[in-house]
Amino acid sequence: VKVALLGFGTVGSHVARILATDAKDLQLTHVFNRGVERKKVDWLPDVRWTDNADHVLSSDADIVVEVMGGREPAGTYVRRALESGKSVVTANKQLIANDGTALLELARERGVHLSYEASVAGGIPVVRALREGLSGDRLHRVSGVLNGTCNYILTRMGEAGATFESALAEAQALGFAEADPTDDVDGFDARAKLCILARVALGLDVSPGEVACRTIRDLRDVDFMYAQRLGCTIRQVSRVERLDDGSVVAWVQPAIVASGSPLARVTGSENVVLTSGVHGGETAFSGRGAGGGPTAVAVVSDLVAIARRGGQRNVSSPAVSRPSSVTAEFSAPHYLRFVVTDQPVIIARLATILATHRINIDAVFQAPGMSKDALPFVVTLEACDPAQVNAALAEMLRLDFNVAPPFWMPMLG
Amino acid sequence: VKVALLGFGTVGSHVARILATDAKDLQLTHVFNRGVERKKVDWLPDVRWTDNADHVLSSDADIVVEVMGGREPAGTYVRRALESGKSVVTANKQLIANDGTALLELARERGVHLSYEASVAGGIPVVRALREGLSGDRLHRVSGVLNGTCNYILTRMGEAGATFESALAEAQALGFAEADPTDDVDGFDARAKLCILARVALGLDVSPGEVACRTIRDLRDVDFMYAQRLGCTIRQVSRVERLDDGSVVAWVQPAIVASGSPLARVTGSENVVLTSGVHGGETAFSGRGAGGGPTAVAVVSDLVAIARRGGQRNVSSPAVSRPSSVTAEFSAPHYLRFVVTDQPVIIARLATILATHRINIDAVFQAPGMSKDALPFVVTLEACDPAQVNAALAEMLRLDFNVAPPFWMPMLG
Repeated sequence: VKVALLGFGTVGSHVARILATDAKDLQLTHVFNRGVERKKVDWLPDVRWTDNADHVLSSDADIVVEVMGGREPAGTYVRRALESGKSVVTANKQLIANDGTALLELARERGVHLSYEASVAGGIPVVRALREGLSGDRLHRVSGVLNGTCNYILTRMGEAGATFESALAEAQALGFAEADPTDDVDGFDARAKLCILARVALGLDVSPGEVACRTIRDLRDVDFMYAQRLGCTIRQVSRVERLDDGSVVAWVQPAIVASGSPLARVTGSENVVLTSGVHGGETAFSGRGAGGGPTAVAVVSDLVAIARRGGQRNVSSPAVSRPSSVTAEFSAPHYLRFVVTDQPVIIARLATILATHRINIDAVFQAPGMSKDALPFVVTLEACDPAQVNAALAEMLRLDFNVAPPFWMPMLG
Repeated sequence: VKVALLGFGTVGSHVARILATDAKDLQLTHVFNRGVERKKVDWLPDVRWTDNADHVLSSDADIVVEVMGGREPAGTYVRRALESGKSVVTANKQLIANDGTALLELARERGVHLSYEASVAGGIPVVRALREGLSGDRLHRVSGVLNGTCNYILTRMGEAGATFESALAEAQALGFAEADPTDDVDGFDARAKLCILARVALGLDVSPGEVACRTIRDLRDVDFMYAQRLGCTIRQVSRVERLDDGSVVAWVQPAIVASGSPLARVTGSENVVLTSGVHGGETAFSGRGAGGGPTAVAVVSDLVAIARRGGQRNVSSPAVSRPSSVTAEFSAPHYLRFVVTDQPVIIARLATILATHRINIDAVFQAPGMSKDALPFVVTLEACDPAQVNAALAEMLRLDFNVAPPFWMPMLG
């Protein structure tokens, strides 16, 4: 089985390395990369190097591996490869999250395979486990910690009392975070992965643009201190759930999670995916979510699976449906953190506003020894909807004792 | 696709329930059970109930589900089903662990499928994840917490300071442990699962009889107290590793594990399977390991996978090899716990014996306030082989200050 690589960055070179050391009946024939001259390596003597993608797309390769990233030109190349009757293995989460339905349908029409295990949770074979290993169940919810960079930052803030800025700088120095961390810390990376999990686990076609994202940039070290007093910590959680009425709840945001819970137990740059099924209850998959090695293993596993099928036509239908609506509203207890100049009236005024929005206070926490000029304290709320919280916060924002805008997040399970 | 059930206990009735509510193109046609009259249920109106296995084996069912347990007569029925051209799905760990090679070869000869996802770690689709999802890697080690009953007992001993006997009684009262807990607490259940994982992940044909088991019955509550002082806890760990020389290290035994490690993070009746690969590093799969629901999901997932293949002949070869040898010897730091009548010479005499066996002491721990007549204390050893420890212990057993036989276990990671 002949394989061509589109992209020779971290993942692409790891894929080539695996194929060079453990051939697994797969022969790497072409490598495409822009400015390919600087990419050539001496341990791939029999490969044709090219900076012209047409050389790959018109070659006799059976399977094209797309590890360039980004929606274009990767999307055009994937489409052309499928149209010319080649199977495709991709690690491209944005491509599958946004254009997966059309591309999978194209692959089925042409009888070729389009596999994307590497697009979610790199080293954890979660696509295969969900689609096949839990096919006997009826899953209704998938949640997870899907972004290793955020989890590294939050773990450091929780363990070491680091600020967001210093934990981010540390992640950047270690190569876990990009110079521009927007995709990670603002949730866009996790959101694309969540849409792929919705497709695989729940059979739902949800677009990234429909899923609300909230950044982790607004978290402060005091939030971890208060979380700890609650027997909890903080994670960037992604969640999608199908309700009985056909609507879907989906979001990516920071959330308070109980210390012993599976979401809290992933530390550093690990990922975890949790599924809830009618028959089997909760199952967890965890492992290293990113890095060249684990992601390349996922790519090669897809290659091996296609090769094992021995040229059989792909006849499987995508079988996804559109939800009737997608919302971030769901009822949960909430955590509100204020930073104020201390005055006797504060709690009374906040409680009055919450009461007018029919929100019940669960508890008020104030750690001793804080500055009276910029006093952080926390109010926890009984179960309510984010819309209620936002409406109350809109009023609270106008109160003159705020030194910083109030911050809120849901408290899970 | 027509399905027949051999066995209508907890797992069998859960399988029937899933098929009755979510048909998934599968039709349950026969149910076999001894004394079947008392098993009949009114929610399976179109099923033929029988206590004669021949009725199932000579029926027109395409797939036979074996959820009887035990090696016989289950093994005979499975063999006859395969010989008559039926695919088989089984949850029977002892059958696959002991007779898997012959049965899988028989299935391949007849062009039918033999699937056994439910035989290991019930709710976690680890067979599929290892065989397909990590096929791109070269795995060399699998370890795990594979017995939920033991993990429940050890979690309770660690959290609540319970004795082994009271934690076992509690597990029995909750239905986690059998009246005769031998299979669980002495490691035979975990050992069968380990042999199946060795087959799936490492391509190794290891028999249960070749794998050394040590019981968890000898653990005392003080062991958890000392483990905690070491920043650790205690788990029943199963491990199989292929060495470069073709030999295999395999064992099931209680072991000291670091509190933050994936082996320690599974609590209660959860299971975890950890793999180590050359290219992808460590991956963890965790979830509920047993119970009718999760196990039935695994069975139905196997049924769905066979049905999706639409009658295609099974041409895959088992591709397993025999290791050159199987041993429980591996170098690790060790934990030794003594219970003695206090005397000034104890440490000196123990240290002398250890020195003659070329074992270095790492540390000595003695909690305050213990009885002088039955004083438990702990010696930790630098890395050494179990054979060295056993040789030293054989000499120490003769020392007259022992109140109970010394107990040892390896310290992992």
